[in-house]
Amino acid sequence: MAYELYYWPSTPGRGEFLRLALEAGGADYVDVARRKTGMAKMMKLMNGPRVTQPPFAPPFLKSGKLLVSQTANILMYLGGELGLAPATVAGKLWANQLQLTIADLVKEAHDTHHPVATSLYYEDQKKEAKRYSENFRKERIPKYLGYFEKVIARNPSGDRYAVGARLSYVDTSLFEVIEGLNYAFPKAFAKQAKKYPLLMALHRRVREKPLMAAYLASSRRLPYDQVGIFRHYAELDG
Amino acid sequence: MAYELYYWPSTPGRGEFLRLALEAGGADYVDVARRKTGMAKMMKLMNGPRVTQPPFAPPFLKSGKLLVSQTANILMYLGGELGLAPATVAGKLWANQLQLTIADLVKEAHDTHHPVATSLYYEDQKKEAKRYSENFRKERIPKYLGYFEKVIARNPSGDRYAVGARLSYVDTSLFEVIEGLNYAFPKAFAKQAKKYPLLMALHRRVREKPLMAAYLASSRRLPYDQVGIFRHYAELDG
Repeated sequence: MAYELYYWPSTPGRGEFLRLALEAGGADYVDVARRKTGMAKMMKLMNGPRVTQPPFAPPFLKSGKLLVSQTANILMYLGGELGLAPATVAGKLWANQLQLTIADLVKEAHDTHHPVATSLYYEDQKKEAKRYSENFRKERIPKYLGYFEKVIARNPSGDRYAVGARLSYVDTSLFEVIEGLNYAFPKAFAKQAKKYPLLMALHRRVREKPLMAAYLASSRRLPYDQVGIFRHYAELDG
Repeated sequence: MAYELYYWPSTPGRGEFLRLALEAGGADYVDVARRKTGMAKMMKLMNGPRVTQPPFAPPFLKSGKLLVSQTANILMYLGGELGLAPATVAGKLWANQLQLTIADLVKEAHDTHHPVATSLYYEDQKKEAKRYSENFRKERIPKYLGYFEKVIARNPSGDRYAVGARLSYVDTSLFEVIEGLNYAFPKAFAKQAKKYPLLMALHRRVREKPLMAAYLASSRRLPYDQVGIFRHYAELDG
């Protein structure tokens, strides 16, 4: 039975981390909300009065009777299902830790354009966004990317992947982070990228995997926009 | 062998979610950084050049050779070790999902006083903090607590606990959220608490567990302060 992925249909956002894992794992899945009547189905799972384990927000995944939400939690589940995570308990915890650190970075990337409230327009928090973004570019991007560079460098199985000797969901997520930061902060990112050669090599390695290359060239891959997590506003790029 | 907990020694912060689980599970543990030379030991695990799986930030836990970080990840591990989580895969994923949603709330609670940058003083982002906090009090607290109230109400095992029929780490974490919000936003919280009777009953139930009551009365429980996640600034309480 195909996995059912539920996420807002028009933007990569947090759902993209799941799409990448599903595609890298060669999974059979349906991107439900992008189909006719899919949005209604998604809202029913979120707000239906009989859902005993309701998601707080998209994305979420249905796998048979199982309903799983929170991006890192879904990736942990898919990692085991699709062979995109280490097999040992210690390895699984390590992959999950890295994914949670990626999630923290993603939240901060979102807050560069929404530092006051998600419910307000960007235009109503532009001043705060500028201040937040300056700190994000100068302190936070280097702190996070420097950390992931170190993680790859210290991988006992070699520096081709973040965890172990094979592709994992941590790698596809790091790929998406690089893509997103490069879209949102092209000037700032171009200046910094050379400091993270292993991370950039990993990004290329993920992009060139046959399943990834096919996905990225397809219409299943949504373009970045101005409503998702990663947005480009020139005034926030320094 | 005792678990080794590593967290900043002077504040409850994110470490408190782990202390509560360790205490509720009757675990043998050492709160390393609160001991003499403990801080040096903590910094070495974070920054030592030979740590192959370095934490991004405290808290982290050592259990024998295993080094685990990210609060929700550590709780997932401890949940299994201490019998503070469901035994099934589906139950574990559900508990982890709820904990990740709690983590999102905790991050937002932190951002009420640090909406621009963690590296700046509160005094340098007071204006933004006021705006952020207003939205947090009016929209975010009701959204999160309303969600957890619903989760408890729909628990097929009854509405005494968040997950299943027994105490889990999700309950001790919800306890800490209630404590923290009540400390940080006493006025706003007092007005809202009555809307969440099941959550407030769960809070009392956790507090009255013998192991919890003993812990809360001990010097191991640190008081809230003005350097941690939950801080009280009257001007942010509306």
